[in-house]
Order: sequence, then C-alpha cells, then structure tokens
Amino acid sequence: MMDGMAEVKTKRGKRITMGDAKQRIIVDWGTSSFRAYRFGAGGEIAEQHQAAAGILTVENSAFEAVFIREIGHWLTPQTEVLLSGMITSRNGWIETPYIEAPATLAQLAEGARAITAKNGMVLHFLPGVCVKGASPDVMRGEEIQVFGSVAPQENVTVVLPGTHSKWVRVQAGVLHDFKSFMTGEVYAALKAHTILGRLIPEGTSTDDTAFNAGVRQALNPGSAGLLNDIFTTRSGVLLGRFPPEEITERLSGIVIGHEIRGGLALGWAEDVIRVVGEPGLTRRYLLALRTAGLQAEAGPENAAVKGFRRLGALG
Amino acid sequence: MMDGMAEVKTKRGKRITMGDAKQRIIVDWGTSSFRAYRFGAGGEIAEQHQAAAGILTVENSAFEAVFIREIGHWLTPQTEVLLSGMITSRNGWIETPYIEAPATLAQLAEGARAITAKNGMVLHFLPGVCVKGASPDVMRGEEIQVFGSVAPQENVTVVLPGTHSKWVRVQAGVLHDFKSFMTGEVYAALKAHTILGRLIPEGTSTDDTAFNAGVRQALNPGSAGLLNDIFTTRSGVLLGRFPPEEITERLSGIVIGHEIRGGLALGWAEDVIRVVGEPGLTRRYLLALRTAGLQAEAGPENAAVKGFRRLGALG
Repeated sequence: MMDGMAEVKTKRGKRITMGDAKQRIIVDWGTSSFRAYRFGAGGEIAEQHQAAAGILTVENSAFEAVFIREIGHWLTPQTEVLLSGMITSRNGWIETPYIEAPATLAQLAEGARAITAKNGMVLHFLPGVCVKGASPDVMRGEEIQVFGSVAPQENVTVVLPGTHSKWVRVQAGVLHDFKSFMTGEVYAALKAHTILGRLIPEGTSTDDTAFNAGVRQALNPGSAGLLNDIFTTRSGVLLGRFPPEEITERLSGIVIGHEIRGGLALGWAEDVIRVVGEPGLTRRYLLALRTAGLQAEAGPENAAVKGFRRLGALG
Repeated sequence: MMDGMAEVKTKRGKRITMGDAKQRIIVDWGTSSFRAYRFGAGGEIAEQHQAAAGILTVENSAFEAVFIREIGHWLTPQTEVLLSGMITSRNGWIETPYIEAPATLAQLAEGARAITAKNGMVLHFLPGVCVKGASPDVMRGEEIQVFGSVAPQENVTVVLPGTHSKWVRVQAGVLHDFKSFMTGEVYAALKAHTILGRLIPEGTSTDDTAFNAGVRQALNPGSAGLLNDIFTTRSGVLLGRFPPEEITERLSGIVIGHEIRGGLALGWAEDVIRVVGEPGLTRRYLLALRTAGLQAEAGPENAAVKGFRRLGALG
C-alpha cells in the first residue's frame, strides 16, 4: 500500500495541518508498545488500538508490515498519520533529527518529516528532543506527552516514569531541559540478572510499607549510594531483618528513591511535580515523591493525545 | 575419602592450631573461583592451584567431589584444611555463622567450625562477618584478606574491588565496619542486559582517558546520580559527543566513580585507602581513587595467605 513513498518536507515555520482529511490517526510507537488513535471528523477519538508491538519486537525492520497488520483496516487514501516515539529513531522506521532544548511545540511541528505513500496517504514523523553539552540526553515520544500535560505558560516539572524515566523542566510552557533515568530497566536487570533475584520467592507482592522503606533508605542523607543500598535487600534477608517477600518492593523503592534523589539534585523540585504515566506506576511515584516531602500530582490521562491536539493537527 | 565426617566444635576462646600436621592447606573458595595453597613443613607455600570452580559452578551441592577433583592428590590423613569464602555460606558446603563487626582475628578463629573426616583429616570452615542495624551487610572471605593487609594496630580503609566490592574500615587493627557495593555485578548486567550494550562495538578497549571521564562525571557534585549518568553513555554516542568505542570505559568509570562517591559519603576516606585485589582491577581503582583526590595505595599480593598466617595456623 505504501510502496513508492515519497518524502515531502514539512515547510519550515509552517505548522502541521491535516487539511481536509476525513481520517486522522496518531501513533505513539515506542520501544515496547504500539498505541494508535483514530479520530472522527469532529476531532473526537473514534477508535483506539494498543498492542505489545514495540519497535524492539519488530524483526528485520518490517515496520510497514507491522503498521498495516495493526491498523491497516483504518487506512484510506485520505488518511493522515502523525507518529512519535522510538519509531522515529535510528533503530526505527524513519529517522528524524532531534530538536535541541529549550524546545517549543511549534519547533516540534517544524521538525517533522512528511512521507507521502503511493496512494496519497501522508505520514508525519515527529522529531525527538535533545540536550547537548556535558550531560547529553535524548527523548522520543515523551515530548508530546509533556506538551499535552502542561498549560501554555506554566512552570512545572513533569516526571514520566518508565523504562527510561524522564524528568522534564517546563518553564513558561517551554520544554526547557530534561534528564533520563534508567530506573525501570535497571530494576528489571537487577531482578533478572543479578544475585538479588536469587532470594525472591515465587509470586508477586505489593506492599507499600516495604516500598516506602526502600524509598526512605535511598533518600537518607547517610546513604552510601544505589550500589550499596541495593545489596542490603539481600543482606537484610540473610540477617533476618525482613522476609524475602519484601525484596522486590524494597528494591523498587530504593531504585525509584535514587531517581528522586537525582531529581532533587537538579533543583527542579521547587516547582510542582506532575507525574504522567500509566496509573499503577503513577501511583507508586506519587507515593515516593510525597515520602520525599515533595508537592506531587497526577497529570492527565491520554497526555499524548492532548499533546497532538495542541499541535494543531487534530482540529 | 571424607565419608562419615564428624563435626568437632572448635573450643571457644582457643585459637585454631594445626597440631603436628605435615600437610597444611588453605582454600579461598568464592562465588566464581577456587584458590588453594599447600604449605610445606616450614610454613612456605609448596604448591598452589587455582580453578574457575566457584560455588556457582558446582551442581547439586557436590562440593566434596569438586574439592577432591581439584586438590584430592594433596590430601592425606595428616592434612588440615582451612576454608573461607562463599563455601561457608548458606549456598555452600558447610554454613558457618557470621561474627558481628567490630570483629577481631581471634573472633574469626573462635567462630570456625571443624569437621573431621573418617580418615582423620580436619577441615576448619571459617565464619563470615556481618553488620546488623539499619544498613545490614555481610562478607565471607574478604575478612581474611583484610587481616592479611593491615598491621595489628593500624587505622586504614581497605577497598576490595570485585563483583561485590567491599569498603572496610579498620580501626586499631580491628575490622570495625564495612559496606558492600554491587559495582562489578551491576556493570556486567548493564552491558549484557540493558540498551547500553546495543551500541558497544565488537572487541574490547582500554582507555584511561575515557575511564577517567566517567569517574569525573560520577564525582561531579552536579551529577543526578548513577541512573542518569549511565544513560549518557548512550545519549553521548547518539549525539556524536564521543565514539561508541568509549562506552565500556566510560560506563566502568561511572559505576566505579559512584562506588567511590558512596565510600566518600561514609567519611572513611580520612584514612589512607588500601586497594586489595587482582592487579588489573587494583590499577583501575587506584586511578579512580586518585582522580577523586584520595590517598590510595596497593595492598599486598596474596592477602588471603597473609591473613591465614596471621590467624596463627600456618606456623
């Protein structure tokens, strides 16, 4: 269907507009998941689809095939698609450049790459955002959620928990600066691929008390750092200080606590902290941030959709 | 050969003595390696043997079989063996209790468990050392290296780099306190089981400049912590700040740098820091500790042997 796609550069300075397309679709395609929304003519969400078809699951770069497998039945010659996330990265379908922070929503629109399929359908691949300098950083996908979570002139720190959590400083509505923390990925690697996993019993537990004990341990001024704190989830069991059932929650609290400790070191916590993510993870982060004495609140649901709306593309 | 072993409790308060045994052997048997030394009648090392036969490689708890496979040809009815390391842990051959720090060499000797084999041979399993309280910690095997590295009344901080690095505070010759850092294991897990490994090219490199850049990044007061610093080894490559060939060395520097940062938070660096480990790792730690402005020196080789000698067991 998209054979013979031709790239049409988005005009510099011009906002993405979707013309008179009857079919508007946005795709938030990340490392581990694929989320798509089809909009009706009035701008309402007519249909949505989610699959565990993140770019890491796509073999031989068969992105077009996966795209058609997941939402091919939505596509017409009048369709216009906006894509963001890791799908626009070097390991994705179409690589777009990074916009350097401080970044505005208008700059995101300008940095998009438009591809026209043979049948006339247009796909807009959004850029990522980067920070250069001594502490380089990159994001792809979170930026649209950030713009969907803040008011035009707001000062706020947006935290997006996940595999690579982001702390994003928004000043006067501009995406000013950000830092990535490998919290989710490190937690998973510690459980699955280090000695800490050995004592963890079968079955999962959720225990806010053990989680908070881990958070407090990480935030303790006397902490000798993450590399030491995580070891105590093993030694504490060996010495009978707590049962092995608490290991996963304590470990989660310690790793998230050290992310917060890092965020505090940035000095960005003077503003309110807005947590944007899936509900379970958001709840844990709010708990941890409040344990740290910070003013924290949950952001909107469907932040990506709201961001795309603000982009002016969805009527 | 050791069928029908009988345990003979070491008499409390009595130092381990090896009697008139003609064959004295010490075994430092850890998670990943097996190191044995056979001593002559005059106390000199007559023979040594090392194998990658750590306790994690031993299937079905067949420790006796591995012991005999590795050094069975050294054993006689007159043999006395001293064992330390993870072989004395819950997952090892004979579990011994932990001595609580502050711990002396005499307490280690008192805490040993003696097992007599049917043929008359005696095996002494040494205890580990623990710290109880809010930051619990454990070690097995390092304590004998510590006592082999310090003078009887010395104040010094001994650092033993490795899978689980130890920082050990020795005051007036007593093993006063210690902390474990999962530096080596976390570094290996990050390379093998996270996105950071993806950009690492084939082949290894050693590059002190990149390593030191990582150490300095970790020690920078503005660092947002380990979870952020490690991510920059990826984003820095994506943004062209340094080549992918530098990832492993920068990552190693960042992880070791954060261990040192944790050690500094303990306030133990007022004393000289003595690094005890295999030569390559010792060199890297000395480099990193000196980059941190600390007074650091290499400890003795064969620290475990020196520790066993001090235990009074080797004549």
